[in-house]
Amino acid sequence: MSKSLRKRSKKSGLPPGTPVHIGVQKTDQPILTLLTYQKTSVQEQTVSTVEECLQAIAEDHVTWISVKGLHDTELLQKLADGLHIHPLVIEDIANTEQRPKAEAYETYNFLVLKWIQQVSESEALAIEQVSMIQGPDYVMTFEEGPLDIFQAVRTRIHGGKGHIRSLSTDFLMYALLDAVVDHYFVVLEALGEGIESLEDHLIANPNPENLSRLHRLKRDMILLRKSVWPCREVIAHLERGDSTLLTQATTVYFRDVYDHTIQVIETTESYRDMLAGMLDIYLTSLSNKLNETMKVLTIIATLFIPLTFIVGLYGMNFRYMPELEWHWGYPVVLLVMGILAAGMIWFFKKKRWL
Amino acid sequence: MSKSLRKRSKKSGLPPGTPVHIGVQKTDQPILTLLTYQKTSVQEQTVSTVEECLQAIAEDHVTWISVKGLHDTELLQKLADGLHIHPLVIEDIANTEQRPKAEAYETYNFLVLKWIQQVSESEALAIEQVSMIQGPDYVMTFEEGPLDIFQAVRTRIHGGKGHIRSLSTDFLMYALLDAVVDHYFVVLEALGEGIESLEDHLIANPNPENLSRLHRLKRDMILLRKSVWPCREVIAHLERGDSTLLTQATTVYFRDVYDHTIQVIETTESYRDMLAGMLDIYLTSLSNKLNETMKVLTIIATLFIPLTFIVGLYGMNFRYMPELEWHWGYPVVLLVMGILAAGMIWFFKKKRWL
Amino acid sequence: MSKSLRKRSKKSGLPPGTPVHIGVQKTDQPILTLLTYQKTSVQEQTVSTVEECLQAIAEDHVTWISVKGLHDTELLQKLADGLHIHPLVIEDIANTEQRPKAEAYETYNFLVLKWIQQVSESEALAIEQVSMIQGPDYVMTFEEGPLDIFQAVRTRIHGGKGHIRSLSTDFLMYALLDAVVDHYFVVLEALGEGIESLEDHLIANPNPENLSRLHRLKRDMILLRKSVWPCREVIAHLERGDSTLLTQATTVYFRDVYDHTIQVIETTESYRDMLAGMLDIYLTSLSNKLNETMKVLTIIATLFIPLTFIVGLYGMNFRYMPELEWHWGYPVVLLVMGILAAGMIWFFKKKRWL
Amino acid sequence: MSKSLRKRSKKSGLPPGTPVHIGVQKTDQPILTLLTYQKTSVQEQTVSTVEECLQAIAEDHVTWISVKGLHDTELLQKLADGLHIHPLVIEDIANTEQRPKAEAYETYNFLVLKWIQQVSESEALAIEQVSMIQGPDYVMTFEEGPLDIFQAVRTRIHGGKGHIRSLSTDFLMYALLDAVVDHYFVVLEALGEGIESLEDHLIANPNPENLSRLHRLKRDMILLRKSVWPCREVIAHLERGDSTLLTQATTVYFRDVYDHTIQVIETTESYRDMLAGMLDIYLTSLSNKLNETMKVLTIIATLFIPLTFIVGLYGMNFRYMPELEWHWGYPVVLLVMGILAAGMIWFFKKKRWL
Amino acid sequence: MSKSLRKRSKKSGLPPGTPVHIGVQKTDQPILTLLTYQKTSVQEQTVSTVEECLQAIAEDHVTWISVKGLHDTELLQKLADGLHIHPLVIEDIANTEQRPKAEAYETYNFLVLKWIQQVSESEALAIEQVSMIQGPDYVMTFEEGPLDIFQAVRTRIHGGKGHIRSLSTDFLMYALLDAVVDHYFVVLEALGEGIESLEDHLIANPNPENLSRLHRLKRDMILLRKSVWPCREVIAHLERGDSTLLTQATTVYFRDVYDHTIQVIETTESYRDMLAGMLDIYLTSLSNKLNETMKVLTIIATLFIPLTFIVGLYGMNFRYMPELEWHWGYPVVLLVMGILAAGMIWFFKKKRWL
Repeated sequence: MSKSLRKRSKKSGLPPGTPVHIGVQKTDQPILTLLTYQKTSVQEQTVSTVEECLQAIAEDHVTWISVKGLHDTELLQKLADGLHIHPLVIEDIANTEQRPKAEAYETYNFLVLKWIQQVSESEALAIEQVSMIQGPDYVMTFEEGPLDIFQAVRTRIHGGKGHIRSLSTDFLMYALLDAVVDHYFVVLEALGEGIESLEDHLIANPNPENLSRLHRLKRDMILLRKSVWPCREVIAHLERGDSTLLTQATTVYFRDVYDHTIQVIETTESYRDMLAGMLDIYLTSLSNKLNETMKVLTIIATLFIPLTFIVGLYGMNFRYMPELEWHWGYPVVLLVMGILAAGMIWFFKKKRWL
Repeated sequence: MSKSLRKRSKKSGLPPGTPVHIGVQKTDQPILTLLTYQKTSVQEQTVSTVEECLQAIAEDHVTWISVKGLHDTELLQKLADGLHIHPLVIEDIANTEQRPKAEAYETYNFLVLKWIQQVSESEALAIEQVSMIQGPDYVMTFEEGPLDIFQAVRTRIHGGKGHIRSLSTDFLMYALLDAVVDHYFVVLEALGEGIESLEDHLIANPNPENLSRLHRLKRDMILLRKSVWPCREVIAHLERGDSTLLTQATTVYFRDVYDHTIQVIETTESYRDMLAGMLDIYLTSLSNKLNETMKVLTIIATLFIPLTFIVGLYGMNFRYMPELEWHWGYPVVLLVMGILAAGMIWFFKKKRWL
Repeated sequence: MSKSLRKRSKKSGLPPGTPVHIGVQKTDQPILTLLTYQKTSVQEQTVSTVEECLQAIAEDHVTWISVKGLHDTELLQKLADGLHIHPLVIEDIANTEQRPKAEAYETYNFLVLKWIQQVSESEALAIEQVSMIQGPDYVMTFEEGPLDIFQAVRTRIHGGKGHIRSLSTDFLMYALLDAVVDHYFVVLEALGEGIESLEDHLIANPNPENLSRLHRLKRDMILLRKSVWPCREVIAHLERGDSTLLTQATTVYFRDVYDHTIQVIETTESYRDMLAGMLDIYLTSLSNKLNETMKVLTIIATLFIPLTFIVGLYGMNFRYMPELEWHWGYPVVLLVMGILAAGMIWFFKKKRWL
Repeated sequence: MSKSLRKRSKKSGLPPGTPVHIGVQKTDQPILTLLTYQKTSVQEQTVSTVEECLQAIAEDHVTWISVKGLHDTELLQKLADGLHIHPLVIEDIANTEQRPKAEAYETYNFLVLKWIQQVSESEALAIEQVSMIQGPDYVMTFEEGPLDIFQAVRTRIHGGKGHIRSLSTDFLMYALLDAVVDHYFVVLEALGEGIESLEDHLIANPNPENLSRLHRLKRDMILLRKSVWPCREVIAHLERGDSTLLTQATTVYFRDVYDHTIQVIETTESYRDMLAGMLDIYLTSLSNKLNETMKVLTIIATLFIPLTFIVGLYGMNFRYMPELEWHWGYPVVLLVMGILAAGMIWFFKKKRWL
Repeated sequence: MSKSLRKRSKKSGLPPGTPVHIGVQKTDQPILTLLTYQKTSVQEQTVSTVEECLQAIAEDHVTWISVKGLHDTELLQKLADGLHIHPLVIEDIANTEQRPKAEAYETYNFLVLKWIQQVSESEALAIEQVSMIQGPDYVMTFEEGPLDIFQAVRTRIHGGKGHIRSLSTDFLMYALLDAVVDHYFVVLEALGEGIESLEDHLIANPNPENLSRLHRLKRDMILLRKSVWPCREVIAHLERGDSTLLTQATTVYFRDVYDHTIQVIETTESYRDMLAGMLDIYLTSLSNKLNETMKVLTIIATLFIPLTFIVGLYGMNFRYMPELEWHWGYPVVLLVMGILAAGMIWFFKKKRWL
């Protein structure tokens, strides 16, 4: 996380609206994909110049311009100029440390979201920033790298399933947003499984390795929460439907995706509670084990230290020690020690230590 | 919980409004029950086709269609089509991971609730999803399995007790909702008893078994809370009475069930507080026990280690050790050790260790 | 608490508005007391039938009907029918697990409150439910048992002190409400003293007995809080004065009692904070004691174990051990051990263990 | 705190508006001071009767009546009657357990505040109640004891510095309020210094004495918070300026004092956070010390216990023990023990215990 | 922090609006810099008198007056008088303990902010107060010391980059505010790196030094939070745009800087969560280590104490001990001890201690 944050300071002192790429460069050069569709036809192509994208936009069909790779700020600038996007919007797109947000401008809506992925159980969650601009007849998406986040939406448009092809850009934006939120459930499932398997391990065997898995899960939750919480406001903002670019018919869909966000947040909070509970269990198990260990030590020590004293007593070399001369001295001492040991054991039983 | 959540990812990428059954299949095939009543007559029958259900709906009586088993999405789809239900509603019904919610559509109200049951004290709470659609002259309920959640309401309608038979569908919906919320009290009672019995055990005997019972209760509380909290908004939403399908007369009943929900939530929160307090008690008891154990060890060790040193001293084999030759050597050493031991005991008494 | 809660499940499945007594029966049969007063006269009598009560109500004086004992639901039903009270109100009165609340109906106001009493320091707080119905010229109070909660108000009416006799039913309701809230201060004082005395004991002597007193106080706070918090909304609801049954003049009195409730809540929260702080102190004291114990053990062991090794060394029976034959062997060993012991003690001093 | 709280129960059962002095009596008899001023003249005198005070009030100048000592409820009653103050106001003034509040009546404003003082570092904070009534041409202040809380304001009026003399009673009220809030900073500074000095000590030397200082500071924070939090609402209430007795010009001053209150509250919260952090540090230091102690013990024991076993072995008196007869037996055993000890030390080094 | 707070008490008792410098004096005498610009020209000069500043203000260009050093209250007073600034504003500027705030006056806006800097990792964060007054054609900034906080803005004006030169005073104020907020990211980056490096160290090696680094980071977070939280309200206040001095065009910029503030706050909260998690990890690691240490001790003691007892037994000097005479006595005892030790080790293996 901090690796890219480090670069945030590059921006300090620059005039506002200067697009500076903040984050890790994930593609050699930006990939521009153009997908245009209307009720009866779909066309997809990879283009190399901004001009091609701008020319493709027309009123009779929906144009989806996808940009993968954000380090070429000149390209972003050109796109912005062509579609009269505010410089601050382009600045936010280029800055992958941006907080999720939704802003309604007069002729377009602007969205920033976080796509989350669990690369492997031993690594932290990978976060990628996804931005969208929705105009009256175009949608632009900006992704950091070559991951195909919106593959399913693309397939759906090609296949013509559902009514996506007969609806406007706001439904496309909804579909893209839904894809991002739906993927949170995939991540949550994986984390949920991780939590359950850890829980079983922790109670059986509270070792330091499990502790660091617990710590990793906690950090993931902090990260997830930071990404998902603002998402809620974002969608609430859209759902309220201030913008003229959103039709009444899609509002019910935004309400649906809003519900999903709330569910993601609530599940995250439950998981946080569970993890907190598991740390308590872990600490208490450690205390229990320490108690057990100390009991064993105390029983052994309490049993043998007095006996060792007695045998030491009769190991002294004084010339005049009458007991040593007695014929029954040795058996009597053995007997006394036996009685002492039995008394100790009885005492431990009474204290429920044995 | 995660067993069914795992299947949530099946939905990722599908177009919205596609009903996919998420959860465990609990019946071989869905059971359709039809109950129609008016002031003077009641009729109940099990039907096998959706068409029979749809034909039974008429303005002069209330029709209650009960569906048990949600895996047959085709059947759900047919019902939805017949009554002009929005596809997203059917999607939510089929998804048993849905969050409790209330939605008012133009011609019907839609409710999702969670029915909670404590199967046994050693197992986690069982959660079942219950959905309802209330139209002007029909109510549809959707349950996951063959459990008869609404048995009491059914009996009341047959018996004609109360004024349920003379009122409209909104009162039936209230009665069903009330049955779900009322059952939370049954679960809370069982949990409350569990907490009290655990509390008595914990103070008497803080062992790991009690710890895991505590942990189980805590998890139950997290689960319960997650199910009941949204329920509050659901009922508040209905109580506010935006929908034209709810008459003024039933509002007071919704206010009553709202109060019950608040009481369930407050009791849950009190129980959480109590469980947190009990973990503190448990941890402190462990510390106390450790302290006690260490005191015993320290007393024994402190008493006998110096004495053992002394007897070891006179067990040395030096040729020239004048004390060994003295006639009163042995008794003097015994005396010295007695004084030392008495001093130690006095010291422990002063420190209040004995 | 759970003893009566257990009975809550009796209600599950019954039609709404069915009065079922939930709780412990505290009187053999309900005690009905009738008190009527106007500016110049007061009359109090114990009556045996509901009819007598209903006949006493008239416009020219205030009638206060007091019912003690809630198990006779038939009697409650009769009262309700005579005064046109909603069935849900009677259901709430009979259910002593009801949450504090205020409801304004067209012709009467309905209040549920909790009266709290500290029976003894070693027992949990006793909670009794008090309900009131205020009509235009009558007030009805419902108590669980024979405790005379409103003794002081009764005396005040008889004595004619203050202006209670010249005012309407809303002032009587305020006076009764004030009596309940005022008694919270009595309970808080007792708990406050308990906290302070416990605090002194805990620091001086952190033993398990004090721990369980602390636990009891914490539970009391949870109980108190659960009873008092909703009280705040109740009075806020009345203070806002939506009801036409409340005159402008009494509003300032309701504001006053509202302030008292806030003060009770704030004091409860402060006490919770203090108790949390005391548990921290207790745990830290235990850790301190453990540290002290371990230091003693470590010092003794570290001092004597090496010395015991040395004396053991010269207790070996090897034939050829030149030191044993030396004339100054014994004194030299004694000297070496003395130096070793002194070094240890110096080390402990340096480490500030002595 | 509880010493005076104990007396709160005296009020239980009395009619509302009965002034009862609750708290500690701090003066033999109330001190009445009268200060009248207008732009060009100031006059201050100590008076003995209420009548003198009332006669001094006139429209052409501001009259400040100061009452020190609240136990003479008759005097308070007389003042109230003379100026038509509501009985509940007088009741609140006499009750020093009153919560800070502001109330706007038709002809006057009523304020209750808490003056806080740190008598010494080892004692709890001293709290004194200050009440004010602001009328169109008079201000009355009520203090518990002979402390001259408003000395600085008095001096300012005499000196004629600032524009206090040319403004109305609302500015005087502001000045008095500001004096109370400003003094919170003095207390906060002292507490802040206490926290810092404690922090330095705790890290250097975590002993029980520092723990009880920490506990005292925490209690002070709880007390301070309870006094200052309601203060915020009080001033917000005044700032909003509902009352016709407050001129527009003074609103900016109330906004200023409001900001100060917020700052006091935020500093209190920061201090609470710091104290919580310090307790964590303390507990962790204790754990660290215990670990260190146990390491020393374990090293000594692990080093010498096996060696002691070996020397004990050759101290046995069996007739047939061939090693004892060997010529090199003793040196070999010494060598073996040396190697064993070296191995142990290597093991400890590897485990980073040495 | 408290060093300057200590001086806050100097103000107690002074009339409001008296400017008193509270804080540390950081310059010998205040540095006055005057920068005037319009679309085509820029002029910057250091001046020595207030009069020069005031004369430079004119409608056709923007005048930025920068004051560094706040101890010369007379100078501040003169500036205030010349521009008709309210005395309370000057008082707030001189008091470096002022809480961040925004106030709209009729002819100017007033802002107080905190500039934060991390001097070195081992020291606490340095906080400097920055105040701004924005009039229709001038902006005044007040800094505590000679640090050039606004260097970048100055450079930008000189260079004419962006459209700063063609816009009014509100855009200048935004640019200055943005410079302060942007620098928070620089501090956050440094702290984030500190947290990560500490995290790696803590898990590898939980020693007291890391603990005090953790403590330092926690304190920094408390400080940062206290400075940044109010900043949010400040900017929200400006963004809402009540003031006529703020043009519509700059509102979108204020919204941008508001988003940044939210991001700073959220990152601070995440860091706090992480630090809390790290303390838990640290404490648990300590417990783990203690457990390990105790296991070693217990194993050694449990293994050798019984053996030592046995060898002590046959070291007794009784005349009649038949075993001592047996020819195979010594080997048999060795064998018995070997079996005992093996049994112990098997027991430890079973308990998973080895």
